Amino acid sequence: MAILQPLIDMAEICYRQGVRHVVISPGSRSAALTLAFVRHGGFQAHVCIDERSAGFIALGMAQQIDSPVVLICTSGSAAYNFAPAVSEAFFQQIPLLVLTADRPREWQHQYDGQTIYQTGIFGPHAKRSFEVSPDYGHPDVQWAINRITNEAINLANTAPNGPVHINVPIREPFYPAVGEDFTPSQQVRIIRQELSETVLPQNTWEELLDEWESAPKILIAGGQGRPDAALNATLARIADEWHVPVLGDCIANLSGSGEFILHHDLFLGRQEAENLRPDLLVTFGMSFLSKDFKQFIRKNPPKYHWHIGEDAFLADPFQSVTRNIVGKPAAFFDKLFERIDYQSFVENSEPDNDPAFQSLWVTNERNARTKKHEYMQNLSTFSDLTLLDIIFKDIKNEYQLHIANSMSVRYANVLATENEWSGVHANRGTSGIDGCVSTAIGAARVNGKPTLLIVGDVAFLYDRNGLLVDNLPQNLKIVVLNNAGGNIFRMIDGPGSLPELETYFETRHAFSARRTCEDSGIAYFGVSSTGDSEATVKEFLDFDGIALLEGFTDPAENTSAWKGLKRAAH
Amino acid sequence: MAILQPLIDMAEICYRQGVRHVVISPGSRSAALTLAFVRHGGFQAHVCIDERSAGFIALGMAQQIDSPVVLICTSGSAAYNFAPAVSEAFFQQIPLLVLTADRPREWQHQYDGQTIYQTGIFGPHAKRSFEVSPDYGHPDVQWAINRITNEAINLANTAPNGPVHINVPIREPFYPAVGEDFTPSQQVRIIRQELSETVLPQNTWEELLDEWESAPKILIAGGQGRPDAALNATLARIADEWHVPVLGDCIANLSGSGEFILHHDLFLGRQEAENLRPDLLVTFGMSFLSKDFKQFIRKNPPKYHWHIGEDAFLADPFQSVTRNIVGKPAAFFDKLFERIDYQSFVENSEPDNDPAFQSLWVTNERNARTKKHEYMQNLSTFSDLTLLDIIFKDIKNEYQLHIANSMSVRYANVLATENEWSGVHANRGTSGIDGCVSTAIGAARVNGKPTLLIVGDVAFLYDRNGLLVDNLPQNLKIVVLNNAGGNIFRMIDGPGSLPELETYFETRHAFSARRTCEDSGIAYFGVSSTGDSEATVKEFLDFDGIALLEGFTDPAENTSAWKGLKRAAH
Repeated sequence: MAILQPLIDMAEICYRQGVRHVVISPGSRSAALTLAFVRHGGFQAHVCIDERSAGFIALGMAQQIDSPVVLICTSGSAAYNFAPAVSEAFFQQIPLLVLTADRPREWQHQYDGQTIYQTGIFGPHAKRSFEVSPDYGHPDVQWAINRITNEAINLANTAPNGPVHINVPIREPFYPAVGEDFTPSQQVRIIRQELSETVLPQNTWEELLDEWESAPKILIAGGQGRPDAALNATLARIADEWHVPVLGDCIANLSGSGEFILHHDLFLGRQEAENLRPDLLVTFGMSFLSKDFKQFIRKNPPKYHWHIGEDAFLADPFQSVTRNIVGKPAAFFDKLFERIDYQSFVENSEPDNDPAFQSLWVTNERNARTKKHEYMQNLSTFSDLTLLDIIFKDIKNEYQLHIANSMSVRYANVLATENEWSGVHANRGTSGIDGCVSTAIGAARVNGKPTLLIVGDVAFLYDRNGLLVDNLPQNLKIVVLNNAGGNIFRMIDGPGSLPELETYFETRHAFSARRTCEDSGIAYFGVSSTGDSEATVKEFLDFDGIALLEGFTDPAENTSAWKGLKRAAH
Repeated sequence: MAILQPLIDMAEICYRQGVRHVVISPGSRSAALTLAFVRHGGFQAHVCIDERSAGFIALGMAQQIDSPVVLICTSGSAAYNFAPAVSEAFFQQIPLLVLTADRPREWQHQYDGQTIYQTGIFGPHAKRSFEVSPDYGHPDVQWAINRITNEAINLANTAPNGPVHINVPIREPFYPAVGEDFTPSQQVRIIRQELSETVLPQNTWEELLDEWESAPKILIAGGQGRPDAALNATLARIADEWHVPVLGDCIANLSGSGEFILHHDLFLGRQEAENLRPDLLVTFGMSFLSKDFKQFIRKNPPKYHWHIGEDAFLADPFQSVTRNIVGKPAAFFDKLFERIDYQSFVENSEPDNDPAFQSLWVTNERNARTKKHEYMQNLSTFSDLTLLDIIFKDIKNEYQLHIANSMSVRYANVLATENEWSGVHANRGTSGIDGCVSTAIGAARVNGKPTLLIVGDVAFLYDRNGLLVDNLPQNLKIVVLNNAGGNIFRMIDGPGSLPELETYFETRHAFSARRTCEDSGIAYFGVSSTGDSEATVKEFLDFDGIALLEGFTDPAENTSAWKGLKRAAH
């Protein structure tokens, strides 16, 4: 047996547990891991020299395939560069298997190169952090590496999904001899994780149905979640047949009913919204984008608030949860529909929630849409909003949408709501701007769909090293809203009037993405006025291959356009 | 008192404790910190949108001024992007004061934006991690913030220097009203740290002198350390008057004696080096570059090995330390010289170490130099080595040299040894490639010296976001050795013959730094052959302002040139 046979077997276990993608940042200490996965033959290997971007590329892939992607890096600060992606994966519940090569512990703090304290380096942001022993020849170590690899994948795949870390100390020599065998052991043990299905007890259902029936005004609201056809179908039935308003931000990926509430961000900021207060609020999914919605519920707390999810912690961002119902939302709503439907059938009555309540929400929704359209039609200045409006009108339905944090995601939550996207994604786990480009690149590498990324200039510059990946996905279109700095600071209350605004908050600059595109072989399109934008957008969207469209807009114009829209739609 | 008065006072404490520089990455949660430092009036504020680069920019500054530089970021994964620089600062013993804004703890894991687990986020890589309470109005909190700020700066400044973290939870509102007062409290308390001087007891000195005298063959070797004129003067006297060989890598910053051993990396790899084995090895400083030197000592362990330093841990990279002498090297060698000199005077004898031992080292050193010069003179192919040779011959003495990790630092340890640099620096704390550009930018911002950075293409691309800093230092010259990938993997034993070399280790690419220079307003010079390089190097070095010289070299040629040099000098 080769001395690093357990690492060769690690790759085999990953393969047989369903892993198909590995993202590698090069290194010598990690050579055995790299070669184990590359020579296995069953993996697609992706390479990026910058571990920070590599981490988000892996995250983008895992987000799409909902299955762990392996990350490999060498020892030292390389592992720390994965940390932003690991924390995002943790809060966005995306499965990753992070393999960090390390010096053996005896070399810690010995002035030896690329040696830091890697044990548990991701703190509470890894679901668990394992460390194997470098005595690869010992049978106990072989047993442990087998068990740990199985356990790590099973854990990454168990709700709430998330990143799992294995720290892998490796001694020299790092490289195999020419012709060295990389065949996995004959009998690599696979440990399958078998989970029971969970069923709420009868008496819980009775209490739930009592609360449901005692609440004439019910609101269902979805936080961030991947597209889920079964869940959408059930929610559409609940909205359409029972007249319950169902609300979601664009990242909730709700679709399938004309009655869904998608423009709450435009109308809930009003003072006179109290009559929209639900008696029972039912939430599911992860984070909510709309600050106005959060504040509306905090100000108008429901009597009952059920949260449905498998989050492993009690999230209560509305400060109103009264029941934390542990389970999958799709299954829960399905069962809920079935139960209430059966009860209505037995009692020969309609569910007695108040249809006027849904009407009120839907009226607000339609009103906001109409006002939005009117406003956009009359908006004559060239701005981020006008450019996005043109793009969203032109784009085809099968596109997947990725939105960077900061203003992009706020714009999209208002303007991208009426398209039929095949998925809307944003890094709302930690809401950082540090990996938006790389995440979209990773997603586009595996989703097989035309993919659109909307990103501001600051987030684009921050994460431009994602473009250093070995093979850019040709199905990706990038829109950079270049307003010459962090425009959001001019939009929000507070910094807009500070003398320090431009230097210390917006950080005004004159960068353009053009040369970065030339460096990376990305087709480049630039627009800076309304006049040329429609034709250029068309050309950009029609371009066969990866392309970037940069809109040069004025931060003051953007601010007045955005504030005008929010005012107009109220 | 304004609600965030304690943060305004924090800036005042920093100022009165001697802090003068603050590196800011913009954010809303951190606005109070940003404004407290910017409005104070006593700080130079530097801005970089990418926290990873901001961290290394601050590190480069603190490395130069040997005094804490303040880092400010907003909440969320921003803090994690500081981690690579924090770990480098920890192992390179560079003082930083890292201020991370945070949400109050009650919002952890509540699906709220930019909220991760920031408490103690840098693990063992911060000397200490404090967290203040967001109840800024409470007198105990005010007392604690005052004490913690004082303690953090004192701790960062106490040997071994290093990064200290204060996590600062801040509630809304984040921004002051127009005209809000930012005057520090009238009586901000300053707590000075007063350290006693340490003196080794008489009986320890007697034991040391006994060992010194019983060891005819003595070798002094310096690891990484900042330039220290007093230490250099004492070491030069020891080398010149007592005939003790004194050895150091380029990052040891030894200078002032023609007898210093600087080319050990070229001659210690030989088999027949055993006669260079010391009886007593005296080391000081941090990490050693030369792997051959480490292996030589491990293979030929001295009878006694004293390590002099204030490291707070027992570093033993040569696996031979017998005495860990806690104290400053300059003071120790000064006292040692004085003691032995006095003893020689009393006994009316010369110190009885073996002068032939130094001669042997010096002969090897001179021999290696001569062979190096001959080799370089005859090297006709254009390569990294030939380009560096031209640059080092042309460059003036007052330059400060920064060298990136990977091959750059290895080249410099052989070729940059005969210049009179005003400081040679490399990030050898963790030896990562992740912050080499930003560190040089930070250093050049404050050192007031012409500064030269030698960096490979991969390290340059990795850390190009350092160029996004608000104001590039015009005293910086950057040399990019563009060998189209991670050339080091072809140089070292092992990966050179793997079929995976180009794709998974070197990661071959076609990027050039030219467009990045155009984006950043950096004068660009390119060379790709011996013919034009001398004139271009001259033009580049004479250029008035920040400039970048990119040498396009062939990885195979570089490999044969480097291996040839190592062979020739043996």
